[in-house]
Amino acid sequence: MSLNIEDNEVDIVIAALRSDLTAFMEKWRPFFSRFHLIIIKDPDVEEDLQIPPGFDHQVFTKSDMAQILGATSINFTGHSCRYFGYLVSHKKYIISIDDDCLPARDNAGTLVDAVAQHIVNLKTPATPFFFNTLYDPFCKGADFVRGYPFSLRNGVECVLSCGLWLNIADYDAPTQVVKPNDRNVRYVDAVMTVPVRALMPVSGINFGFNRELLGPALLPGLRLAGEGKERWETMEDIWCGLCTKVVCDHLGLGVKSGLPYVWRGDGVDVRGAMDSLKREWEGVKLMEEIVPFFQSVRLPSTAVTAEDCVIEMAAMVKEQLGPLNPVFASAADAMVEWVKLWKAVGSQGA
Amino acid sequence: MSLNIEDNEVDIVIAALRSDLTAFMEKWRPFFSRFHLIIIKDPDVEEDLQIPPGFDHQVFTKSDMAQILGATSINFTGHSCRYFGYLVSHKKYIISIDDDCLPARDNAGTLVDAVAQHIVNLKTPATPFFFNTLYDPFCKGADFVRGYPFSLRNGVECVLSCGLWLNIADYDAPTQVVKPNDRNVRYVDAVMTVPVRALMPVSGINFGFNRELLGPALLPGLRLAGEGKERWETMEDIWCGLCTKVVCDHLGLGVKSGLPYVWRGDGVDVRGAMDSLKREWEGVKLMEEIVPFFQSVRLPSTAVTAEDCVIEMAAMVKEQLGPLNPVFASAADAMVEWVKLWKAVGSQGA
Repeated sequence: MSLNIEDNEVDIVIAALRSDLTAFMEKWRPFFSRFHLIIIKDPDVEEDLQIPPGFDHQVFTKSDMAQILGATSINFTGHSCRYFGYLVSHKKYIISIDDDCLPARDNAGTLVDAVAQHIVNLKTPATPFFFNTLYDPFCKGADFVRGYPFSLRNGVECVLSCGLWLNIADYDAPTQVVKPNDRNVRYVDAVMTVPVRALMPVSGINFGFNRELLGPALLPGLRLAGEGKERWETMEDIWCGLCTKVVCDHLGLGVKSGLPYVWRGDGVDVRGAMDSLKREWEGVKLMEEIVPFFQSVRLPSTAVTAEDCVIEMAAMVKEQLGPLNPVFASAADAMVEWVKLWKAVGSQGA
Repeated sequence: MSLNIEDNEVDIVIAALRSDLTAFMEKWRPFFSRFHLIIIKDPDVEEDLQIPPGFDHQVFTKSDMAQILGATSINFTGHSCRYFGYLVSHKKYIISIDDDCLPARDNAGTLVDAVAQHIVNLKTPATPFFFNTLYDPFCKGADFVRGYPFSLRNGVECVLSCGLWLNIADYDAPTQVVKPNDRNVRYVDAVMTVPVRALMPVSGINFGFNRELLGPALLPGLRLAGEGKERWETMEDIWCGLCTKVVCDHLGLGVKSGLPYVWRGDGVDVRGAMDSLKREWEGVKLMEEIVPFFQSVRLPSTAVTAEDCVIEMAAMVKEQLGPLNPVFASAADAMVEWVKLWKAVGSQGA
């Protein structure tokens, strides 16, 4: 499906956890060059960023963060630096792809335009209230299957598009250790709506979202003690995804998963998974508390925006999860702080 | 994924709506020949069935039905004749494929063994309580994505495997009329668990199920007035699928959708969709009552088997949907009658 994409609707946010972005950006040039890029330099990175010429981009560093945010309790180092980019963007849509991912090839060998696919996913409706066995009915050549209620075929607005990964999939540290040589070679040519009330682990490696409607829910909440720079050492996107899905379900908005794929390879240190197993094991244990909580959260009907929902959820996190582990109390604080920042930075921009 | 499949665990049930099964069975020979086939001749078919030699099969006709069932209010003509096959089988698994479908080819051009794929789907766990973005984690080369709770990775028993269709997809009559030349060419190489509480239109064209656990829920309930022989004129499988999904959700059993594909072509009269539009339109309207009902059904904890669940649901159908349309009252009666037949025929066999 092709849709008219306005360049000025989209910001591409890149979290620079490595200083040399040359290879990354050259490979993405055909798909990134028409859009504005917001590059956030991980505050822990010392070296100057290397960015090839020919991109419409802004770089934000530690000192920009200090100036724009003032004093904040949120830690924007590591993978969490990208969230600063979500704050300073003024665009309707944001696409974010990790700097260790390159364009993938589809089954026909064609390079995949991940940006275009995310935008198509976001601009066509989602259908969370009934499952369509033929996948996304708005894909070219697809439709609703027999028995799909006509009253539900208009769907709802899709606000989150979760892409996937060829080569090195997004596994946790234990799985990486058990299967260090496994590679994801299965290109599943499908997009689907994740049904209402089905929770999922959203990965921040390759995704897009509607910033206007969902931005306040895309937040750096849960931070593990001793969180490292490898993806499997982080939980920020998993927590954020659970918050987001609950918000979408409450507000009647849609989430899709599937295409586009990116190629995840160079720079992913799968051999290092063993070293981070101890740290990530904390995250694995926390999930056993987190999932039942998010499965049971019900938001009041007075919550009518993503901001409202986050504030409500933060209070529930503090009350119900806070006593179990200090990281949850911190997450609740970060959620409240994030909404404050969102309003403050938004009003600065306006 | 390959699993050891015992021939004596599986019956293949074929509803013969046409008399000449030669081409159908020859094409399926490589995959059907090792299994026992139960062929149910549609009572409306006059001519003798033509079945090529070399298959271990039983044919059941109108007179067999009369003898085994005695007087029954259930109408086993047309597509509903297959349900008689579910009654008389004694196997653990049943695979049922419409007689206008042939083996499909995958993206590599290899003929798909639909029976084997259904059995793999049924013998590996389903994961309905949390969505895995990497599709079926039990497929070869796949696993659970980062953030998937370890406590949910064992999954639950999968009891229903819903396959798909290349070439002519399973659309309703209005969609067929709007898009008479559309063909499904997208081979999506995936199997997925349908999440708990997500309802779906199950198609009876190409599916497999665990007869021991789910059999009493696989029933010919809803029958449209003037139901014809084309798939888009029927609702029996859609109704049956909604019942089944509610039963699975209540009992903690799983449903998968996706592979295997079959090739749906010769014999599907897409040009005839216009003629049946008027009849099927009744089904389309009924769905607007049916879906909210099944979305709201909650079964009591005393219902611990598929039979219990069907009896409970039949009472709710009668009470809540019955007053809206006589077809619903008839469906409720058929559900009760079906459970009676299931017990009676089961005890005859034993």
